[in-house]
Amino acid sequence: MIATPPIVEFVVTGDEVMRGTIADTNTAWTAARLYPLGLSLRRTVVVGDRGEDIRRALLEASVRADFCIVSGGLGPTSDDLTVECAAQAAGVGLRLDEAWLQRMRERWAARRREPMPKNNERQAYLPEGAEMLGNPDGSAPAFSLRIDRCTFFFLPGVPREYQRILNEMIVPRLARATGNAALRTRVLQCYGVTESRLDEMVAPIRAAHPEVRFGFRTKFPENHLSLAALAPDEETAARALATVEARCREALAGFVYGADGVTFAQAVGEQVAARRETLCCAESCTGGLATQLLTEVPGSSRWTQGAFVVYSNELKQSALGVPAELIRQHGAVSEPVARAMAEGARRASGATWSPAITGIAGPDGGTPEKPVGTVWLALAGPGGTRTKHSHFRGDRGQVRTLAAYGALQLVREALGAPPLPRHFWEVGQGASPGKA
Amino acid sequence: MIATPPIVEFVVTGDEVMRGTIADTNTAWTAARLYPLGLSLRRTVVVGDRGEDIRRALLEASVRADFCIVSGGLGPTSDDLTVECAAQAAGVGLRLDEAWLQRMRERWAARRREPMPKNNERQAYLPEGAEMLGNPDGSAPAFSLRIDRCTFFFLPGVPREYQRILNEMIVPRLARATGNAALRTRVLQCYGVTESRLDEMVAPIRAAHPEVRFGFRTKFPENHLSLAALAPDEETAARALATVEARCREALAGFVYGADGVTFAQAVGEQVAARRETLCCAESCTGGLATQLLTEVPGSSRWTQGAFVVYSNELKQSALGVPAELIRQHGAVSEPVARAMAEGARRASGATWSPAITGIAGPDGGTPEKPVGTVWLALAGPGGTRTKHSHFRGDRGQVRTLAAYGALQLVREALGAPPLPRHFWEVGQGASPGKA
Repeated sequence: MIATPPIVEFVVTGDEVMRGTIADTNTAWTAARLYPLGLSLRRTVVVGDRGEDIRRALLEASVRADFCIVSGGLGPTSDDLTVECAAQAAGVGLRLDEAWLQRMRERWAARRREPMPKNNERQAYLPEGAEMLGNPDGSAPAFSLRIDRCTFFFLPGVPREYQRILNEMIVPRLARATGNAALRTRVLQCYGVTESRLDEMVAPIRAAHPEVRFGFRTKFPENHLSLAALAPDEETAARALATVEARCREALAGFVYGADGVTFAQAVGEQVAARRETLCCAESCTGGLATQLLTEVPGSSRWTQGAFVVYSNELKQSALGVPAELIRQHGAVSEPVARAMAEGARRASGATWSPAITGIAGPDGGTPEKPVGTVWLALAGPGGTRTKHSHFRGDRGQVRTLAAYGALQLVREALGAPPLPRHFWEVGQGASPGKA
Repeated sequence: MIATPPIVEFVVTGDEVMRGTIADTNTAWTAARLYPLGLSLRRTVVVGDRGEDIRRALLEASVRADFCIVSGGLGPTSDDLTVECAAQAAGVGLRLDEAWLQRMRERWAARRREPMPKNNERQAYLPEGAEMLGNPDGSAPAFSLRIDRCTFFFLPGVPREYQRILNEMIVPRLARATGNAALRTRVLQCYGVTESRLDEMVAPIRAAHPEVRFGFRTKFPENHLSLAALAPDEETAARALATVEARCREALAGFVYGADGVTFAQAVGEQVAARRETLCCAESCTGGLATQLLTEVPGSSRWTQGAFVVYSNELKQSALGVPAELIRQHGAVSEPVARAMAEGARRASGATWSPAITGIAGPDGGTPEKPVGTVWLALAGPGGTRTKHSHFRGDRGQVRTLAAYGALQLVREALGAPPLPRHFWEVGQGASPGKA
């Protein structure tokens, strides 16, 4: 570690971004990747496709920052001005990169019949003195250029291309600039714990291990802890990360459901599939959301048989055999109906596990006895059926999400995960409220 | 209209935003609202919670922009620095707003038992010379302040509070600043047409009506056209908007499914409900997504009975009565199976309409005859069953989304909407690719 961390700024170009037509998702993604490196992230500037605005943004950053990541404006059309503006800001001309032109022509020939339009050749020009970084997935090459005291990295704005270049070419350079050559990271994905409680639980580990940076990110209703170990060599980084990860996993116990990008439903599904078992949900108020989550990842046919979405009382009866009398006596949002839904879905599908969800997602339909957010969950499985009463807080979408997660959590617990604290089921997991 | 449109900039404050922990959704949302006003949106600056960075951002904007919208940093905690920084940048002190303090105390007393913490009183202080704008939904008041040549609007960052203040207090002021007092807007939401084709179809109307601003926004797989009429008075604005909207609706014919924020599935559902009819889907590769879309809005029990998510072949047979022989002979992704799924779901549910979806969402499971993206759709209804072969391009999530929309489109067409062009079903709707 060096005493003063390098200052990093971002410049985002593009009329579409400035006008709100498309969202700039690259910068937040990058900031979340760079912050653990110990870099000082100081400013993002977004400007439209106007030459003077782009030049001004570059020249301003050039005297303030050590590194500046610029995205967008590297396409072949006339409103792609970034290469020219970079050269003008640096006070240099453009040079043709013959090797890149050759690569572009080959790429084009492999994909299309007609010859490459003349206009596209623009993408083979870089400012004099720039270092070509390339682009494994596209025709707009990334490059770096020094202007004044700042090293600029220019990247295409297409997220898929941007992210790969950032990961493979930029992050390693920035890691080295912090005085460390090796970076190992891990994201521990948690469910059932608030961000502030998570922070509290790992605080002693954080204090004892300054060699690892801790970061937090909320992805409703989950909270993720990111760990980043920077060290002079790979072995030291790996060892530091492994130690801290083990301590964090121990401290967080049942809250960690997975790491490094798995989804919650996928983690549950993989666990079910590993036992050669299957799932079939019975969903009322969630309208298929739990099954949607279970099937959004590839390979989900290994654990999902399907689902019965029984929104109407008639379908609860005809598809799952829930007795009409039960609904009349207790209401559709009740323990006996949740139980009958789960058992009916398990019987009808032959699945190993059938979670059931019935509740009041709102905004209408609440009563004093059963306010909006009231949800009955059930899980039918080999050992019988268990039920859970919950009251989740939030808008319609949040209540539905919390209910779908809750149903999957019952499966996790049936497979051995420690149960969540009781208060969880009464308010859901509080993502921390936005800041005023 | 005045000759040179006012220049607007944005300043976003907050460590969480700068570090990528939370995304700034306010700015893109605001830009999309302001662009139709004819304002010149020139720059967004994002800085963390550091006093010098906030002051610098404000002072820089103060000499460049006519208006600057600042979000965040108005909370009660010590890292909320915006009020102080605004005063320092303007070179003034702070004043206590007694009326706001009183309102805060009353709000607090109505909600909690304990007295309001001393710390919260910070939120009743504004820079001297600032105009109090207030906040109908929270304790952090919005205010405006002139610094140098620029009028700043300071808003809390919580999206719900931010958006209401922006709509009710800021947009009308900015509309007046353009020389027009009245603004009428309409968003025409389209499905089944690409952004470039949409642009082309309304180009003659746009050229003939410079008094209305046209804007485009892609929300995969939809494309939205926003119309904004600015005029000296309400009546002129309303008339101009009505004329242009009618012409656009005529030109776009069946592509417009709704306006001003309805969802596609909701528009279909409302149409079904208005006929006192119901829906029950049979979903395979979409895993419940179509039903998810149908039920994410309030009131969806009026049109949704439920769904059969039949991911496994066994469940296709047992829940919907699809003959095993049919699956063996034609494969699960085939016209006869889609037809049998639709008819089985309609029979089992008693719903008026049963759309069915079976396809290969990918990334695995494709064959030369049935590549990834192959989807068979069917719709069983009062007049019999129709089927549709499609090939959608995109990743797993996109194929699933296009398949779910396609199934709902069959319902629209059965209820009288003009059929989409044939090529649509062969590639899906192309959202325009991101810019490099």
